[in-house]
Amino acid sequence: MSTIWSRTSGRRSGGCKLDNGTAMMHAGLCSMNRIYLDHAATTPILPEVCKAMMPHLSDEYGNPSSLHAQGRRARETVEVARDIISVFIEANPGEIIFTGGGSESNNLAIKGTAFSLRGRGNHIITTAVEHHSVIESCRFLESLGFDVTYIGVDSAGMVDPDEVGRAITRKTILVSVIHGNNEIGTIQPVAEIARIARGYGVPVHTDAVQTFGHIPLSVDDLGIDLLSATAHKLYGPKGTGLLYIRSGTAIEPLIHGGGQETHFRAGTHNVAGITGFGRAVEMASGMMDEESERIARLRDSLIERILCNVGGVINGHEHRGLPGIISLTIPGIDADALVIALDRMGIACSSGAACMSSNFEPSHVLTAIGRSREEAKSTIRLSLGRDTNHGEIERASDALVAIVPKLRKFAP
Amino acid sequence: MSTIWSRTSGRRSGGCKLDNGTAMMHAGLCSMNRIYLDHAATTPILPEVCKAMMPHLSDEYGNPSSLHAQGRRARETVEVARDIISVFIEANPGEIIFTGGGSESNNLAIKGTAFSLRGRGNHIITTAVEHHSVIESCRFLESLGFDVTYIGVDSAGMVDPDEVGRAITRKTILVSVIHGNNEIGTIQPVAEIARIARGYGVPVHTDAVQTFGHIPLSVDDLGIDLLSATAHKLYGPKGTGLLYIRSGTAIEPLIHGGGQETHFRAGTHNVAGITGFGRAVEMASGMMDEESERIARLRDSLIERILCNVGGVINGHEHRGLPGIISLTIPGIDADALVIALDRMGIACSSGAACMSSNFEPSHVLTAIGRSREEAKSTIRLSLGRDTNHGEIERASDALVAIVPKLRKFAP
Repeated sequence: MSTIWSRTSGRRSGGCKLDNGTAMMHAGLCSMNRIYLDHAATTPILPEVCKAMMPHLSDEYGNPSSLHAQGRRARETVEVARDIISVFIEANPGEIIFTGGGSESNNLAIKGTAFSLRGRGNHIITTAVEHHSVIESCRFLESLGFDVTYIGVDSAGMVDPDEVGRAITRKTILVSVIHGNNEIGTIQPVAEIARIARGYGVPVHTDAVQTFGHIPLSVDDLGIDLLSATAHKLYGPKGTGLLYIRSGTAIEPLIHGGGQETHFRAGTHNVAGITGFGRAVEMASGMMDEESERIARLRDSLIERILCNVGGVINGHEHRGLPGIISLTIPGIDADALVIALDRMGIACSSGAACMSSNFEPSHVLTAIGRSREEAKSTIRLSLGRDTNHGEIERASDALVAIVPKLRKFAP
Repeated sequence: MSTIWSRTSGRRSGGCKLDNGTAMMHAGLCSMNRIYLDHAATTPILPEVCKAMMPHLSDEYGNPSSLHAQGRRARETVEVARDIISVFIEANPGEIIFTGGGSESNNLAIKGTAFSLRGRGNHIITTAVEHHSVIESCRFLESLGFDVTYIGVDSAGMVDPDEVGRAITRKTILVSVIHGNNEIGTIQPVAEIARIARGYGVPVHTDAVQTFGHIPLSVDDLGIDLLSATAHKLYGPKGTGLLYIRSGTAIEPLIHGGGQETHFRAGTHNVAGITGFGRAVEMASGMMDEESERIARLRDSLIERILCNVGGVINGHEHRGLPGIISLTIPGIDADALVIALDRMGIACSSGAACMSSNFEPSHVLTAIGRSREEAKSTIRLSLGRDTNHGEIERASDALVAIVPKLRKFAP
């Protein structure tokens, strides 16, 4: 199994369907309708989701913690969303804790476990390709005296489960491994890692922010104890996430206070956001398999066109990749300049994880898979979604064909 | 200055405007239009706020951290809200950090200071009448080895600033005092406390969740370093709060991760929620003074009617109270039973802080002001707001007149 989608140079020049002239003509059309290829940063909100939220942004404003009728109705709405989501990942409703987003969920999982189990040990295992909310939570714990092992990955971004097993000590209290990577799309062997870790009695967390609602997920099949997700990556609203906490898992709250969420997370429920999350999951569950296949086909078509007409290297795993994510390195091109140029041509994409777009450091994920600093800074992410269609793929490819040679001229 | 609104028994029986018959007739009307007297738990969302949020729940779905046009527009929207709010409390825009709500803000302020300044000391001063998100944050820090002093209050719920001064030691790293109490409405002398604490170089936090947007607030007049607020207590959406962090204040993030909010709070911005928060503040700033006076008049009218026709004792400070909050103890009556009975008559109110409504412990605020456990469990909170009118006050009073004698019959 090849670990990256690298193509031969022969493929790059042979059989190309477009020339630069056609490409520029197509690209000119982009200003009319923008093409959104940044679904890994955030997704459009479905009209059905917005509609479900509306009552809770107008007449149905009760606080779910209140005893009276308005409060009870709000509570019922929250519980309906919890039920929908618990069925979706084959959990019990009481194991779903609503949070303010994926970063909060990751912080809660990692620090919550660390503070809860600090009497048992101070060692945490994670990987070199985690989301910043996982890495920075670990760095914070290191400043408090915890030890963290960051497991490396191969050139496709894959963690070796056996390496996780070898890192486990008697002091290990948590293994945290991202499910699907937000930059390169690689899907980790979480079930295998969990089987090994839990064999040693070590709880396992997975950050499923990018996979939740995009590929099938069962907390029992994965065998994990904690799982993070967020609504805005699956066509729901920003500001609402969840942490699955397997029944019996010891965890200290991140936000202490009132008794909401069975004392795991204080704060007045974001009723509208939670309702929208539930509706988004309901929508996903009805179309996920079909959509994932359709999006993967579009992804492959776009990769084919890029490699054929533009060149470059695709990062990530050839077979275990998220359907919608393309990580493209075009040596010699400044990624930010390319993102801005594409934006002017009506195409939205990203030069890395959105949350670090103002950061000047090269991506830790790309350097972890062996890209140089220069290559990492020459990498863009195109992420496809439910609204992406074949015409957009053609136009995006044409835009790249038109702009990359121009940017190459300015390359140092 | 009398410390509570207790009236003489003579006042109770003399000059009453209503008899039980009229009261019940009025109360019967309640089923037609519900009366919401639980504004301290949460407020209705203004149509203007909902309207401002709408674009960000539909077409304007960009992630503010993205470089492209959708992202930049979203970022601009967030910054407009930040500007509006910073002007409102006389802060600099860069001192406003958006969070997922008031509880998160309080946790960030307290734990963030504790973890940041733990090299300097391990002593925190707070009061006996704080919100649970402050108290439980302190309890958590105690479990990590921090020392916390809980300053008591007088029978009106007031903290003595000198007592705070006397509690300060060389190890004190934070003073946290609630601005306006959520249960009894008492407004603390935060400016005086801050002057004393900062004289010793100790940073000061105030939980202004109940006062923000209801009474004038200037971070410089108060002289505090940290201030918590949330949108849903001032006719904005649930799930969005803020922490004011005075420039130069040392604070460790609560949610670590991406670089959002100048590294103070990671996580994708809740653009719709933040936009709604800004619009709610804009609406408040135009009407706050007038509305506070109007609501205080309604509050006084309801208190007068209650004391005259129902009896009981009003908790809180007679002169330094929030305009909209009435805490009423009716000895011998079970508060939950009264809340449920009023709910059936179409009136929404509360038997304590909403976030603890499923808790069987008596309110720590009420016991701190000297109420017995039994009195605390015989106390309801009626909280008025912008939609409250004189007719509702009459009907609420009538409902109490009708129902309290019935409940008294069942009292042990």
